[in-house]
Amino acid sequence: MKVAVLGARGKVGREICAGVRAAEGMALVAELDLGDSLDDLVAAGAEAIVDFTHPDAVMANLAFCIEHGIDAVVGTTGFDEERLATLRAQLGENPGSGVLIAPNFSIGAILMMRFSAQAARYFESVEVIELHHPDKADAPSGTAGRTADLIAAARREAGLGAPPDATSTGIEGARGADVDGIKVHSLRIRGLVAHQEVVLGGSGETLTIRHDSLDRVSFVPGVLLGLRRIGAAPGLTVGLDAFLDLD
Amino acid sequence: MKVAVLGARGKVGREICAGVRAAEGMALVAELDLGDSLDDLVAAGAEAIVDFTHPDAVMANLAFCIEHGIDAVVGTTGFDEERLATLRAQLGENPGSGVLIAPNFSIGAILMMRFSAQAARYFESVEVIELHHPDKADAPSGTAGRTADLIAAARREAGLGAPPDATSTGIEGARGADVDGIKVHSLRIRGLVAHQEVVLGGSGETLTIRHDSLDRVSFVPGVLLGLRRIGAAPGLTVGLDAFLDLD
Amino acid sequence: MKVAVLGARGKVGREICAGVRAAEGMALVAELDLGDSLDDLVAAGAEAIVDFTHPDAVMANLAFCIEHGIDAVVGTTGFDEERLATLRAQLGENPGSGVLIAPNFSIGAILMMRFSAQAARYFESVEVIELHHPDKADAPSGTAGRTADLIAAARREAGLGAPPDATSTGIEGARGADVDGIKVHSLRIRGLVAHQEVVLGGSGETLTIRHDSLDRVSFVPGVLLGLRRIGAAPGLTVGLDAFLDLD
Amino acid sequence: MKVAVLGARGKVGREICAGVRAAEGMALVAELDLGDSLDDLVAAGAEAIVDFTHPDAVMANLAFCIEHGIDAVVGTTGFDEERLATLRAQLGENPGSGVLIAPNFSIGAILMMRFSAQAARYFESVEVIELHHPDKADAPSGTAGRTADLIAAARREAGLGAPPDATSTGIEGARGADVDGIKVHSLRIRGLVAHQEVVLGGSGETLTIRHDSLDRVSFVPGVLLGLRRIGAAPGLTVGLDAFLDLD
Repeated sequence: MKVAVLGARGKVGREICAGVRAAEGMALVAELDLGDSLDDLVAAGAEAIVDFTHPDAVMANLAFCIEHGIDAVVGTTGFDEERLATLRAQLGENPGSGVLIAPNFSIGAILMMRFSAQAARYFESVEVIELHHPDKADAPSGTAGRTADLIAAARREAGLGAPPDATSTGIEGARGADVDGIKVHSLRIRGLVAHQEVVLGGSGETLTIRHDSLDRVSFVPGVLLGLRRIGAAPGLTVGLDAFLDLD
Repeated sequence: MKVAVLGARGKVGREICAGVRAAEGMALVAELDLGDSLDDLVAAGAEAIVDFTHPDAVMANLAFCIEHGIDAVVGTTGFDEERLATLRAQLGENPGSGVLIAPNFSIGAILMMRFSAQAARYFESVEVIELHHPDKADAPSGTAGRTADLIAAARREAGLGAPPDATSTGIEGARGADVDGIKVHSLRIRGLVAHQEVVLGGSGETLTIRHDSLDRVSFVPGVLLGLRRIGAAPGLTVGLDAFLDLD
Repeated sequence: MKVAVLGARGKVGREICAGVRAAEGMALVAELDLGDSLDDLVAAGAEAIVDFTHPDAVMANLAFCIEHGIDAVVGTTGFDEERLATLRAQLGENPGSGVLIAPNFSIGAILMMRFSAQAARYFESVEVIELHHPDKADAPSGTAGRTADLIAAARREAGLGAPPDATSTGIEGARGADVDGIKVHSLRIRGLVAHQEVVLGGSGETLTIRHDSLDRVSFVPGVLLGLRRIGAAPGLTVGLDAFLDLD
Repeated sequence: MKVAVLGARGKVGREICAGVRAAEGMALVAELDLGDSLDDLVAAGAEAIVDFTHPDAVMANLAFCIEHGIDAVVGTTGFDEERLATLRAQLGENPGSGVLIAPNFSIGAILMMRFSAQAARYFESVEVIELHHPDKADAPSGTAGRTADLIAAARREAGLGAPPDATSTGIEGARGADVDGIKVHSLRIRGLVAHQEVVLGGSGETLTIRHDSLDRVSFVPGVLLGLRRIGAAPGLTVGLDAFLDLD
């Protein structure tokens, strides 16, 4: 499989290039970055690209790939409904291409979210703790927010009400942020990278699902999985979950 | 729903009686133990029983229930293939009854095992740690052994070989017990009850699934779930997993 | 050593009676509760008492003990500076007695607080997570508040400023409660008892100190330690820390 | 304070150079590696050096420093009693120099070991879990072995016997390695770096002390602390503990 990387000189891109080079059955045929021509993809015979570029560049990159029958695995951010609709239309006219847009390529993070949502309906209580380095600007993290949303939806579907909480006196903030009825706690600790723990509890027992991301290379296996599956998934796929055989 | 408990005066049985009494839509109509007559079940109009008795008693209890069209949720141990075949034959002749045989009613433990097996195919490394009070006779625990078996099977199915391990020098036992190629570590610590942690790791990330059982009441929600589902599940069901809607 | 327990029929008192009975070198000579006469202590020849009674009763109990040269290990709450001053005056006049007043007899909790305060000066970041059952009324817990106070004091003494935190956008409460400049996060989860984790972090590493209290018997070893040491500690001692040889 | 680094081009050395450059009140005046002359230290006016070189080189480096009144903070391995005696003799003749030999500069690891040993005398049970990447050759790790030794010594001093363990049947290795009577469990997981957890337990409670080293820069604060204190500590000091004010 001939793979090209767009955004190849960024921190993430470099790791992906290394990952593709080391992967069995894959050849890295082009490394493009700012200023390079997309025509190089055709010249190199790329069958699939990985795009970790910029919201300003990614739509043009994908239009080119779709036109030329090249599959795409995309980690660039900034996709809203409008952009997804544009891609769907383009892919409708060019049924030979597949595009995977994923906000998160860490298989561990995806499984943490999925298992948490699946378990949520069976436990009276559930809260989310996320721990990151102290240079992070937002609290809670995007992943924690998404996890809480998924848990809240699963509880509603199962007919569960709010988790029990008898707190009547306390200090503001102690009980965390409320995300769709689910409590989320954000720690900022020097030395940490990106970590999350979902604690579920019922009578006499707890189930804890924890994801630790210790190095940015954690998304490489997910990108490689996306590349291996995209050829058999024409059209638009959103979220790497679709390529994990969990059911 | 009219429920009877067999083994009602044992530690476990007492908790189940309390759980049934407190459960919405259930009535505890009979509490039997050693010396009581099974005819009481019919007299009390029991629709389903819970059996936490003894391997010596359970087959007779179940034969009676199957004959009388009473469903059964069974936590008693000692079921081998021969016993299961006997039950299947009896249920075949009495299609009105359902019997659930479950080695474990803790929903948290069941989800831990299931999630561990599902995740196993996506991670290079995986090991199991189980922690119990120091009065436990066996190491590793039965749950840890089953978890390792499930993980090993999932890895084989996914074509994964042995987890990487460069250990060349060391002290005997440091790397744990080998259960079907999966390392299992057993801690015995005063103050603990029953705990297990499955640590999975791949490039740059780890996923940890931990179950803590802090009180014997942890099996009550699973027994109640079994009771709620057994009426719609005629025949023999092995394992509570079948009643969790995880797919 | 002849020991009497005041408050012997309460939940805590019963555990202490059992602990004293099982302890080597101790005899339980009297079990008093509401309505019993303190004279029984003298009649039974009690050398030391354990008091887990009520703020309304404890000062009279201690006055009696001090007058009669009986040592006291006290877990009853409600001691303010005025009460301590009263005890000091009484003990000054009766130098034969020792009284230990301790807000916490769990050796694990005491060590967690002490180690956290000792480590605090060496790490840039530190936050506290406490996890309890959802029937608890206050958040954060008293232990978490005390821990944060001790950490804050240790950081000030070491000349450390506020822990780093670049949070600029977020949801209210995500970053927890602020206790003297230290962030404290409170989780309320069914199935849990009383748990606390202090996470300290510096460049490239974290140190986590966690205490899990799984059963009310966790204070028994601390009470027995208090009894063993109180005979050699005349006067007033506040906090079991004083009897742990940590320096 | 004028600091020179020996072994400056190694992985560790480069991090130390960066750390010294960023440290308040320190100037990096020389970066030496294989082939450079020690005379550069004098020319640069170095007041203290950091040595992360090789057992073959370190004794000559230190002899030079001691002769020239330069303090030394040493992370190079291979020091036995004979080498320490040699250094003591040299320092006796040159009382102006201080040398710190430390097997571990991670403050988190040092505190973990110290707190574990201090707590050990108060808990019936204690075991050690260490988790590392799967390319590590030895199991258990050196740090885990040292921790177990310290714990075993503390228990002996407190008159404690072997931790309770009723294991009578099991799979070989499940209960871990026996290090001086203390059980040690070694996990090897891809994605991890270097982690250790000491679990102590008594009636109804556990205390867990965990150290996570996520990045090799974790030793930098310890090296800087050594540099700041070595000027006031003439002669030989073994172990960074001596410079932590823990008592």
